[in-house]
Amino acid sequence: MPTRPEQPPPELLYLLAGDEEDFIAASADLLPADIAEAMNDLPPEGAARVVQALPFHRAVQLFDEPELERRGEIFESLPDERAIPLIEAMSSDQQVELFRELREADRARMLHVLDAPTREVLKLLMSYPPHSAGGIMTTEFLSVPSTWNAAQVVRHIHEVGSAKETVYAIYIVDEKDRRLVRVISLREVIAAGPETSVLAIGDTRKPITTTPLTHREDVARLISKYNLLAIPVMDDGGHILGIVTVDDIIDAIMSETTEDVQKFGGMEALDQPYMEISIAAMVKKRAGWLCALFLGEMLTATAMGYFEHEISKAVVLALFIPLIISSGGNSGSQATSLIIRALALREVTVRDWWRVALREIPSGVALGVILGAIGLCRILLWQQLGWYDYGIHHVLVALTVAVALVGVVLFGSLAGSMLPFALRKIGFDPASASAPFVATLVDVTGLVIYFTVGLIILRGTLL
Amino acid sequence: MPTRPEQPPPELLYLLAGDEEDFIAASADLLPADIAEAMNDLPPEGAARVVQALPFHRAVQLFDEPELERRGEIFESLPDERAIPLIEAMSSDQQVELFRELREADRARMLHVLDAPTREVLKLLMSYPPHSAGGIMTTEFLSVPSTWNAAQVVRHIHEVGSAKETVYAIYIVDEKDRRLVRVISLREVIAAGPETSVLAIGDTRKPITTTPLTHREDVARLISKYNLLAIPVMDDGGHILGIVTVDDIIDAIMSETTEDVQKFGGMEALDQPYMEISIAAMVKKRAGWLCALFLGEMLTATAMGYFEHEISKAVVLALFIPLIISSGGNSGSQATSLIIRALALREVTVRDWWRVALREIPSGVALGVILGAIGLCRILLWQQLGWYDYGIHHVLVALTVAVALVGVVLFGSLAGSMLPFALRKIGFDPASASAPFVATLVDVTGLVIYFTVGLIILRGTLL
Repeated sequence: MPTRPEQPPPELLYLLAGDEEDFIAASADLLPADIAEAMNDLPPEGAARVVQALPFHRAVQLFDEPELERRGEIFESLPDERAIPLIEAMSSDQQVELFRELREADRARMLHVLDAPTREVLKLLMSYPPHSAGGIMTTEFLSVPSTWNAAQVVRHIHEVGSAKETVYAIYIVDEKDRRLVRVISLREVIAAGPETSVLAIGDTRKPITTTPLTHREDVARLISKYNLLAIPVMDDGGHILGIVTVDDIIDAIMSETTEDVQKFGGMEALDQPYMEISIAAMVKKRAGWLCALFLGEMLTATAMGYFEHEISKAVVLALFIPLIISSGGNSGSQATSLIIRALALREVTVRDWWRVALREIPSGVALGVILGAIGLCRILLWQQLGWYDYGIHHVLVALTVAVALVGVVLFGSLAGSMLPFALRKIGFDPASASAPFVATLVDVTGLVIYFTVGLIILRGTLL
Repeated sequence: MPTRPEQPPPELLYLLAGDEEDFIAASADLLPADIAEAMNDLPPEGAARVVQALPFHRAVQLFDEPELERRGEIFESLPDERAIPLIEAMSSDQQVELFRELREADRARMLHVLDAPTREVLKLLMSYPPHSAGGIMTTEFLSVPSTWNAAQVVRHIHEVGSAKETVYAIYIVDEKDRRLVRVISLREVIAAGPETSVLAIGDTRKPITTTPLTHREDVARLISKYNLLAIPVMDDGGHILGIVTVDDIIDAIMSETTEDVQKFGGMEALDQPYMEISIAAMVKKRAGWLCALFLGEMLTATAMGYFEHEISKAVVLALFIPLIISSGGNSGSQATSLIIRALALREVTVRDWWRVALREIPSGVALGVILGAIGLCRILLWQQLGWYDYGIHHVLVALTVAVALVGVVLFGSLAGSMLPFALRKIGFDPASASAPFVATLVDVTGLVIYFTVGLIILRGTLL
């Protein structure tokens, strides 16, 4: 088994007892991500004091670090003479992320005082949705004219490399119209001779690109499939607007996973770390779906109302209600989790719904027969051993439970697997098909199946 | 809203109607990942015929592509004179992955016929668990002696670069004992002057490294936190065994997410794409947990048995059983998904359980009060409007439901949030705390809470 060490508390925590000077002295040897982590335990005003005391280039590194939480609040606690050069020196994708966290008023004020290039880039990037390629891209990419050779590229990187997000993906653009011609890698440039024209280097196939409105999940899929270090984001005219790098995409994948897991748990995505969000905000994110599910589940009370007469005649049937409806919910939850993930990984598309149904029907029957057999044995065994008295018609009761289980588990598997398709079809995120959603759907139908089976099998005896 | 295009069917599909020659001609312009995707629709024997017909270097690229499914089966369909050079030319991390897919007998036979270097590397890498850093690392990293300068490094990359997994992370090792001294990037090498000693380049801080037994999830966390392109895997003596690159880690994160979602849905991880796994294998993966949950849920029948007398006296109480227990399950499912994810992201650790409990208690009470109020109104409204007759004690019945809801939702939130901690504490994966698991846990307790509240409120009237 691979080891999974529990993360030790940040070694820096003890520093927080001292003042900013102590913090800065002790952090000199640390990587920006570690400083950011330690700063996350400081109140925003304390963190702002540290940022003011840090050397400028280290403050920029820190603000460029996505690990730093509450960047907006810290930034708003800084005086303008520190804040403005700081945001101007940040990389553009991080500028935008910070900008999105600022209060509306601060944002408008900043747009006035920032230098023109920063302002223009910010306006462009802010025009794209936060979860799109345009919303997470950076404009600091390395492009060279198609007339250059390998030696010129290396010299250029020597000079301007440190200002670029990555120098490993090199974008060759047409000298006249600046359209993207080719993407080559620094590895290929170095493997070629110094005099080789950039057009003679590397792969001649059409580069993999994306559009600014492509969802970050789909950008992640491209980067992952083609093992890219960065992907260019193109306008309609074939010019590069910016690039999305692999480290941004890892952060994006992590956030998407968190969203998906929370949605599958039956709630809105928190969008904030669990320990940081206020209890009121968390209750709000949870209450919406919980109430919706509750209203849906009220139909069970209505359904039960229709069978009140049967229950009063055969109370023994009521005993198995939770067992039967939960089995349907559980098999539905399994099917939903399988299909949500298969859709996310593009293993299946909406068109495949009937192929999925053809797999879920035999699976549901098989699982239902297994549970039905266990249920049947359980009731007959308890009766035989004298642990419980299910009455003189206990064999028929057991049979009712077993047959109902087959029906309910089959329905659960089918409903659970079809729900994500149905949601996608009507324009919703299939990941909204949460386990509780499926369970609710199956509970109502499960009751109807159970009592219908009961009415058929027990007519003339118990009912 | 970012756009989310449905993936078009692979343009290559039409090719599959033709023979191998057509396929190869048409695939000349395609990237390996796309060829792999098209091959996934061929039967293994057909795919093996394509591999035999492809130029050797393209066959190697294809087999180095994690997108290629059923690599083991295709490989086993190849004749030895094609198979052996192919595996020997693959990169070591992909060799191991392929090797793990082979039948035991083929594996043993291969170890005999492969060349000595390949055999040694395979033996080393196969000794680590598949989900550990050692199990996914590659041995083709670029190391240079600490006596070199920048120009020597660039010349070295020019010569051997194409055989390395990445040339962007350069590992400086001590000339005598081969221990890792420093990690520098190719960007830093190029930014430095050609005569600069490698020891004078880049960051002087201790490199971020990992051990071979570290779980791939923790390796992913390091790569993501420090924005690395690769991380060295070290032995106890300070020597590099191999490296894990960022594209391997993206694949690993995707697989871990799939596993987590499927586990949260209440089943074993499939470990295969949904459309590919046989129905029998899928039923097996699902039946285990489904039966375990069913056995747990049987306790509801036992619990209901204890209250059979109460139910027969007040059948009206039975009507709300599904509503009440499902509300507990839903709030529990929310809490579990939040905590599983917070633990995975290290936002909370096992030590924080009481801090989580202190947040879940007020949240659970708030959510319970909301649902309780809705439930109370629903019953009184239906009674007022004459839609259903809950009897003369309907106010007390409504009160019982409302109070029970507060208790059940509170218990659900608390149990759901504590379950992942409890599992971690006793050595299990907290991600085993699935939505159905929590629902089952809460169903039994929910019934006891409901009937206990009923006995208190309705004593002397209905009960």
